[in-house]
Amino acid sequence: MVYDEENILLMTPGPVPFHPRVYQAMSRVVFHHRTPEYRKTFGECVSMMKEVMQTKNDVFIFTGSGTAAMDAAIANCISPGDKVLNLIDGKFSERWAEITETFGAKPIRLDVEWGKAVKPEMVSDALEKEPDIKFVTMCHNETSTAVLNPVQEIAEITSEQGKILLVDGITSVGGDYVYPDKWGIDILVAGSQKCLGCPPGLGMIMVGPRAWDVINKREKIPSYYVNLPAYKKSFEKSSEPPYTSAISLIYGLHEALTMILEEGYENRVRRHRLMAEAVRRGMEALGLQLLAEKGCESNTITALKYPEGIDDGAFRKGMQKHGTLVAGGQAHLRGKIFRVAHMNIIAEREILLVLALTGLVLRELGFECESEAGVSAAQEVFLKNLK
Amino acid sequence: MVYDEENILLMTPGPVPFHPRVYQAMSRVVFHHRTPEYRKTFGECVSMMKEVMQTKNDVFIFTGSGTAAMDAAIANCISPGDKVLNLIDGKFSERWAEITETFGAKPIRLDVEWGKAVKPEMVSDALEKEPDIKFVTMCHNETSTAVLNPVQEIAEITSEQGKILLVDGITSVGGDYVYPDKWGIDILVAGSQKCLGCPPGLGMIMVGPRAWDVINKREKIPSYYVNLPAYKKSFEKSSEPPYTSAISLIYGLHEALTMILEEGYENRVRRHRLMAEAVRRGMEALGLQLLAEKGCESNTITALKYPEGIDDGAFRKGMQKHGTLVAGGQAHLRGKIFRVAHMNIIAEREILLVLALTGLVLRELGFECESEAGVSAAQEVFLKNLK
Repeated sequence: MVYDEENILLMTPGPVPFHPRVYQAMSRVVFHHRTPEYRKTFGECVSMMKEVMQTKNDVFIFTGSGTAAMDAAIANCISPGDKVLNLIDGKFSERWAEITETFGAKPIRLDVEWGKAVKPEMVSDALEKEPDIKFVTMCHNETSTAVLNPVQEIAEITSEQGKILLVDGITSVGGDYVYPDKWGIDILVAGSQKCLGCPPGLGMIMVGPRAWDVINKREKIPSYYVNLPAYKKSFEKSSEPPYTSAISLIYGLHEALTMILEEGYENRVRRHRLMAEAVRRGMEALGLQLLAEKGCESNTITALKYPEGIDDGAFRKGMQKHGTLVAGGQAHLRGKIFRVAHMNIIAEREILLVLALTGLVLRELGFECESEAGVSAAQEVFLKNLK
Repeated sequence: MVYDEENILLMTPGPVPFHPRVYQAMSRVVFHHRTPEYRKTFGECVSMMKEVMQTKNDVFIFTGSGTAAMDAAIANCISPGDKVLNLIDGKFSERWAEITETFGAKPIRLDVEWGKAVKPEMVSDALEKEPDIKFVTMCHNETSTAVLNPVQEIAEITSEQGKILLVDGITSVGGDYVYPDKWGIDILVAGSQKCLGCPPGLGMIMVGPRAWDVINKREKIPSYYVNLPAYKKSFEKSSEPPYTSAISLIYGLHEALTMILEEGYENRVRRHRLMAEAVRRGMEALGLQLLAEKGCESNTITALKYPEGIDDGAFRKGMQKHGTLVAGGQAHLRGKIFRVAHMNIIAEREILLVLALTGLVLRELGFECESEAGVSAAQEVFLKNLK
């Protein structure tokens, strides 16, 4: 079989395709983590990560998934009984609420229909109703619905009112604009295997000064492994994490971050935004509808509603047969949408092919469409915008 | 320089030298983790891990260090206010006490001089004094002192008395005999980068039926990321962990476990024990004294007292100059001992060279010894025991 599990294009929201340079870096012989050589590598990862996160705040990198980073963020910041406003418009923003509950705090859910974004005025209203809310959680780029939430506007409100804002940036950091310092994000979480372009296994947490104020006042933090004050102390002493890190993944991250900075922050975000534009225009030209409401579309992933009569399993198996993996819907959106991620090194070539394949597979399944129209619409976008 | 950070023999207690087959496996293209292909790989890792752990109990593999696994073990089992007997004879057994405190339980320390093992009768006495102790924690192979603790005898006591026994097997599993089911260990923790022979980043937890009884009765577990009932549910449903795992490391672990089973459990443990014997005889022949008391020496690491006048930094730099990294002492043993790990693929060749180099460097530093005596003593051990 030409298209097996290793020769498959991952247009899924993590893992994504990784550059050969990153694989090469990861295959480096593991050297000891308590050496000047390793400290240099790790320290450079943290510095580059700050640059990619556009922040001067502390950034910690540790072994674990993005969920581990979210878990650690709540464990470090939020005390039992604290009131937390959880802005929920999909599966990943809902995870914040589940973690809030895990640690005995009081989640106050603000639920928005999946596919729509949270509106800043909803946040103002909720905070007015419950003035003793201390924390607000949200997902920047809600991967389950392909919706981009207005973090900047919401951060303005939370900053003004002295609330601590925790943002899941797992599928935005490295692919779209995120300015934690300028906007006023207090905790920003990321993961290695999305727009950062390094295989899974590393989580990142940015901690701003207002979050530190809260953390430093706590008597006890219910996590030994990711105790942020212990990480800070260890890093300030010797540029290293307190426990053995996933050394091979750190080599990979070092290379991936180097490549991001070689491309340049602006160039990289603009490229992701252009790819997103091309996918949207192309899919619409094929006759498909976006799940995300107008004006709030994600720039790193696109969710499409299935036309009447197209079966989720058959469609995705069809795509896979032709060498490309796209994601289905989650929770109540299962079977109703498919999602195409365009992160990291996904660019024109992949965008054109996924549109061509989508046209082909829809036709194979009996959907009547101009199956080349997707490619044509994306070509127009590229002709206008690429030099 | 011939000996740089990549061309250095790691005789440190993790990371250790990894076989080229493992590096090759890790450089495999990352494929998606929600696919039958990945589930097969992950499921086989769990099955092989059970075989290496000599258990029929549940075993979970997750992204994080060994410390993360210890942290998760306590978070899942122990409730605030629970009395926990922490058997402490080194830095890593002490970590259990620190984690016990982190989660609001009551650590009752049983401290033993570093270099000595915990004696079973000490445990009986402590349990008699405080009959409402529910949990006992210990380190099987205390890496900081190179002492092997009598888990089997202690597990007999805890089993009889209905206490839950949590054992750190991070530097014994895969290198020495550990029989959790036969002995009565309730929770056994391991890490990838020691005797298991896979680069750092994966932690393992074995959970026995008596530990499940305790975990299942808990109302809330203060960890979202490593919630063992959630892991069990996810694994039983589809042979996969609930959150994205460190896919590249899982490939590496798969190969490393395959190699362990190719060698065979008995053969592997016997090899580790023989290497340990050769190191001990060799170091003694050089005139060095072991830190570990007689009869309780670790079989995966050896700690040696520096002779009068030999400086820790100068000795270890000397070894490094000749291409070999050994570890220093930790906490109050810093400067007083050095430690030589003999884990995973360390065998005759490396044992002979580390003894030859130790003789050379001791002579370089002015210590009078028969600098070839270490090699000679080890050769005798090999001549008698290797066919």
